[in-house]
Amino acid sequence: MSRSEFDIISKYLAGSAAAFPTGNIALGIGDDAAQFRLTGLQQGSLINVSMDVLVADVHFPADAAPELIANRALAVNLSDLAAMGAQPLGFTLGLTLPSSDEQWLEQFSAGLAPLALRHQCPLIGGDLARGPLNIAIQVHGQTTTEGLRRSAAQAGDIILVSGTLGDGVAALASFGLPTHLDKVAGFITDPLDDADRLYLKQAFYSPEPRIELGLACLGLANACIDLSDGLFADLGHICKASSVGATIELDSLPASAVVQKMLNSDECSLAALLGGDDYELCLTVPPQQVAAVEAASADLGIAMTRIGVIEQQTGLRCVNGAGEVIAIPATAYEHFASD
Amino acid sequence: MSRSEFDIISKYLAGSAAAFPTGNIALGIGDDAAQFRLTGLQQGSLINVSMDVLVADVHFPADAAPELIANRALAVNLSDLAAMGAQPLGFTLGLTLPSSDEQWLEQFSAGLAPLALRHQCPLIGGDLARGPLNIAIQVHGQTTTEGLRRSAAQAGDIILVSGTLGDGVAALASFGLPTHLDKVAGFITDPLDDADRLYLKQAFYSPEPRIELGLACLGLANACIDLSDGLFADLGHICKASSVGATIELDSLPASAVVQKMLNSDECSLAALLGGDDYELCLTVPPQQVAAVEAASADLGIAMTRIGVIEQQTGLRCVNGAGEVIAIPATAYEHFASD
Repeated sequence: MSRSEFDIISKYLAGSAAAFPTGNIALGIGDDAAQFRLTGLQQGSLINVSMDVLVADVHFPADAAPELIANRALAVNLSDLAAMGAQPLGFTLGLTLPSSDEQWLEQFSAGLAPLALRHQCPLIGGDLARGPLNIAIQVHGQTTTEGLRRSAAQAGDIILVSGTLGDGVAALASFGLPTHLDKVAGFITDPLDDADRLYLKQAFYSPEPRIELGLACLGLANACIDLSDGLFADLGHICKASSVGATIELDSLPASAVVQKMLNSDECSLAALLGGDDYELCLTVPPQQVAAVEAASADLGIAMTRIGVIEQQTGLRCVNGAGEVIAIPATAYEHFASD
Repeated sequence: MSRSEFDIISKYLAGSAAAFPTGNIALGIGDDAAQFRLTGLQQGSLINVSMDVLVADVHFPADAAPELIANRALAVNLSDLAAMGAQPLGFTLGLTLPSSDEQWLEQFSAGLAPLALRHQCPLIGGDLARGPLNIAIQVHGQTTTEGLRRSAAQAGDIILVSGTLGDGVAALASFGLPTHLDKVAGFITDPLDDADRLYLKQAFYSPEPRIELGLACLGLANACIDLSDGLFADLGHICKASSVGATIELDSLPASAVVQKMLNSDECSLAALLGGDDYELCLTVPPQQVAAVEAASADLGIAMTRIGVIEQQTGLRCVNGAGEVIAIPATAYEHFASD
């Protein structure tokens, strides 16, 4: 691909519906750097930045529709801002493409635009290069306080999760792809109808970043993380950063009706616990603030489920409805084990 | 590569010498987002962001030393901040690697650290993924004004460039690699000694981002760009964004002694004009400020050469010492042609 072809593509992206002016953008695509300003600036305002890289055939099938790849790439990044309680400002895109393909770019750009518009988070700059398909997106957001950090969980906090868990891994199974849970959960795809498959496809490619929910929980929740690695691993990150532990009530984990069609009840719990790629928020909330978080969530039309409690004792413990400790098969979470 | 291996690598990078605290970093690696604050904040402060992607075997040989790849990747990004007159705040890294290779990572990290320290621009976050070697770096900087934009050149401005031009493309030739100038310039590598080859290698892998120079030129220069595509293309970007034109005096273009060993005088001019990858600054400066820019540059020990003038008439014109217009062979700049 010659540089002139990339100029055409760059111009296309610069003029795309994903690149629109907002009050925060002082200088958009086309200079050595993009520039943004902070509105309603006050002492203590912080710039939040998060970058996620998505690689073809690692994070998504290379032949997936460009709109879907784009939507997912931006959504998982916005989800990180949601988990900080940050207001989006704009995003940059580092895109590597095997060849100049304007149709692919047009569709990719069309997949970015709706989410960018909905969260007032325009494309402000980036880079295009020739190479294997690879998408680096960095989102920028503003908090007027420290935001919802992983390190702020306190013993006694109630653990809540938004939405349903396990849809991400179930989606992979519904696509006919292997999952890291295949040894412990037998995904049955026979009972799925077209609507179920569409539900899972949307859950995988178009997870809804919980931006408004994160903002609403500022000052109410102590800690927050978005569920990308799976609840077990991600809650583990909170516990480690906060030097606390947690007990998770397996029977309380919220699974969608579609996942319940594919798995038995115990497997549903495992998928919710270990699945990953759900991009819901996991919050730890002081007991006296739980009702307020639930009310804020209800106002946004987002389900919010109490799933456990933060404790002084380090480590993660899983219990069933009778309060019995349930061992989690190592083969199921080894994939995500860190230390 | 399993996720746990990446955790190890992430921790390695988080603890590397490139990730150090500064007064601007409110939250570093390890949460959903990194956070920075602005010091000396004032009305009109802007956040400058720039992302460059480097792909193995496109932008650098895949088997190049990791230190060199890292240094180049950060340097070319910092060069964009230099061209805005921005003060660096920190950088993020989106790294895709074929396999977990701690030694490679250690060397890569060692290549980032000196430049990060020198410019007080620490690694504040990012992402690691498995895939073909691909490096996305985003730098963040602060300007208290609009900075040095491409669109601010004025007819009558004197055009100046820092350092020497043509070393980037000569380096490729010295590595035995093809260049886009091979049709118009016969690079002779026989006369090069070890010191010459080292000079070119450093010019290619360790270009010095002109951060201090960019800062010193704020309020003096009108427009600025860093020379990545080559003077002809990059000055063209300034002219287009500013709706002006320019005349370039070919005989004035500064070439290093090493490049002069490899090329005849006319070829030196072409390499300086069309070579690219030099990461020097090209500034357009009102005549009454030229002496001040030259003095600031001299204070920093950086050569600064007057190479032409901005004019009302659009388009780029190249003239020799006698003032005769010299046609530039289309084959030489086609590679960079845009529109």
